[in-house]
Amino acid sequence: MPHTTLDAPTLTEKLVAARSASITLATANADLKNSALDAIARAVAGGADVILPANELDLANGRENGLSQALQDRLSLTEARLSALAAAVTEITALVDPVGETVRGRVLPNGIRIDQVRVPFGVVGVIYEARPNVTVDIAALALKSGNAVVLRGGSAAQNTNAVLVSLIQDALASVGLPPECVQTIDEFGRDGARELMQARGFVDVLIPRGSASLINTVVAESKVPVIETGAGVVHVFLDESANLDWSVDIVQNAKVQRPSVCNALETLLVHRGAAARVLPAVLGRLRESGVVIHADDETRALFADAVPATEDDWQTEYMSLDLAVRVVADIDEAMQHIRTYSTHHTESIITNDLTNAERFLNEVDSAAVMVNASTRFTDGGEFGFGAEVGISTQKLHARGPMGLPELTSTKWLVRGSGQVRP
Amino acid sequence: MPHTTLDAPTLTEKLVAARSASITLATANADLKNSALDAIARAVAGGADVILPANELDLANGRENGLSQALQDRLSLTEARLSALAAAVTEITALVDPVGETVRGRVLPNGIRIDQVRVPFGVVGVIYEARPNVTVDIAALALKSGNAVVLRGGSAAQNTNAVLVSLIQDALASVGLPPECVQTIDEFGRDGARELMQARGFVDVLIPRGSASLINTVVAESKVPVIETGAGVVHVFLDESANLDWSVDIVQNAKVQRPSVCNALETLLVHRGAAARVLPAVLGRLRESGVVIHADDETRALFADAVPATEDDWQTEYMSLDLAVRVVADIDEAMQHIRTYSTHHTESIITNDLTNAERFLNEVDSAAVMVNASTRFTDGGEFGFGAEVGISTQKLHARGPMGLPELTSTKWLVRGSGQVRP
Repeated sequence: MPHTTLDAPTLTEKLVAARSASITLATANADLKNSALDAIARAVAGGADVILPANELDLANGRENGLSQALQDRLSLTEARLSALAAAVTEITALVDPVGETVRGRVLPNGIRIDQVRVPFGVVGVIYEARPNVTVDIAALALKSGNAVVLRGGSAAQNTNAVLVSLIQDALASVGLPPECVQTIDEFGRDGARELMQARGFVDVLIPRGSASLINTVVAESKVPVIETGAGVVHVFLDESANLDWSVDIVQNAKVQRPSVCNALETLLVHRGAAARVLPAVLGRLRESGVVIHADDETRALFADAVPATEDDWQTEYMSLDLAVRVVADIDEAMQHIRTYSTHHTESIITNDLTNAERFLNEVDSAAVMVNASTRFTDGGEFGFGAEVGISTQKLHARGPMGLPELTSTKWLVRGSGQVRP
Repeated sequence: MPHTTLDAPTLTEKLVAARSASITLATANADLKNSALDAIARAVAGGADVILPANELDLANGRENGLSQALQDRLSLTEARLSALAAAVTEITALVDPVGETVRGRVLPNGIRIDQVRVPFGVVGVIYEARPNVTVDIAALALKSGNAVVLRGGSAAQNTNAVLVSLIQDALASVGLPPECVQTIDEFGRDGARELMQARGFVDVLIPRGSASLINTVVAESKVPVIETGAGVVHVFLDESANLDWSVDIVQNAKVQRPSVCNALETLLVHRGAAARVLPAVLGRLRESGVVIHADDETRALFADAVPATEDDWQTEYMSLDLAVRVVADIDEAMQHIRTYSTHHTESIITNDLTNAERFLNEVDSAAVMVNASTRFTDGGEFGFGAEVGISTQKLHARGPMGLPELTSTKWLVRGSGQVRP
């Protein structure tokens, strides 16, 4: 149900306005950007009277359209959630502004000084699903890093997003920044998402956030450069020398603490020489938490309470209390399994063997490779970034948890005194 | 004329072999990679008896197919060019290996150590035109940075490239590295280039090198992430306070020293308050070098020997002894012109006004922004990188001259002692 009227701006007009706003925002100092963030936090914390009715309308539409309970939960806002959202925005004001940071610099032999400094991308596009908290989060992160942002947030949250963006735009205007620094294109529906993916020259970077199918669609169709935040078929390998207590605690933590996130464990590999020693305790503890074990025959010989694993299990990101388990001959077979099935997010080895630890770190090709730690640590907050844009599973530009610096590009500043090239 | 036979590998088989080779190459140390480079340099320097006949065959085909004289020049190899090519490979051995470099690292409050280190991309695809020197250059740069490379080098150089790649593969095998670290797919023609652009999962990064139309095609069609090395509609702005001698020397150098390259000057902007003082000398000097001036009316009033500029001139990367010239009211109009027409490669202001210098550096959004220096300095060699993969005019991953570190990704190494997330 598009809300466009004859007077409403077209998508192209919105993108042109975003570019223009981005030029002003790129040179705004951190004090001004933090004032805007403070105003946004106040507007969100105090905006229940306009936000919650719009959210209730989206929820009513969702119930009517058969939106799943899980998606209704993610869509739903409450006074408490608004407070948490405002607090997250306030936290971003405390982060260091990445814009202007000198990455490297030197004086050339001819006396020219060159400095590579961080600059905003310009206009960032974000395509995500019906989660209104992402609207506020991403707007705040983009602003702090000096980027204008164009949001396509999913039609199921359209009314909520419209109110949130309107509040954000008022907050921007109240400190003298162009309201077009943050815009939504929800009103253009799927066509809008498609146009955004073609908007090379208007949009500098596109970030998809959400399900694997959403991300795959954007990666396949976008002509704008994409930063891919991907799925995690995450592995833990219990080596022959694995400490039993660490094995039990880390596997439990990686699988059970928050099974629905991308850094949660999906497949456990166990060295044949350790299987009898560690598997009963490791899997017994998981069983207490209600984890369903999908296992190969060797595992099932040691732990009867498991269903047979199929080829599908090695490829699946369950995001639930399910775990695939396989016994392997050695670290080579473990790494071969990981090469075949991993989505290159996070893998961890539990070992006391120095050679194997170093081999695993060097040879496994994932965004985060761990020794004796829970895979749940692959996270911008845990890494000390203060806020997280997403976790990149690709190799270009950013890999692993992305913080504010990953929302910037660089340029070279070159200061001479009449030099010419001989 | 594809060379495929029933026994020759398919393109997919070649890509699978590249991935497998890349796994070995990724953990090869610098000594081993340098041995391979030494062997390649020797093979190229001593390979005239096999390289030059193949090159002569390509040149004969080129003459028959009406290849332009300029393209024949770029295609042509000689004993002297082979020596220079070998010397360039030897120079790459002296560069620091970027693989393993720690970008940043710290110990988290819970005692976990995290380090972000450089790793090869894996498999790099390069699509370029009939320049056999690029075949050797890129193979050497890819090897040094630990990447397997798949080359699509243009059918006009197919015979030359086949011999060069064969020599390189023998050199790789002679030091114990997989020959499939360097492969050509020229035999698959245009279909091969198209398949390469679709080879997501097989190829980690695609780098197009060559004409604007080649680059635009790859950017538009590739599903593999692309690093764009683009065209340069490069500007110099002579501000009101511009030093006359610097203006004359820098404009002359930027336009005339090597007009066919992407960092050469294409459009000169002049502050109205400086035009009468500086333009006659600046343009008079260019005229001595045979430069054709395409100018607006104000310029032509001061310098009669110019042809009228049209809208096209502001958009053109001449790559020849032509220059567009325009008088502007002030730095704001100059920056507005640059925003409208620049390809975001390099722009330089000649000024003695500190405020204007800083505004230009901060507000102009290009890979390199200069004060009082020739635009010809935007170059990997000049910046001290030792070798150059190309000059990126995009904002993702790399911007400006790309050296070896720009051919790497990163990963996070995480070393714990049993930590779990609370």
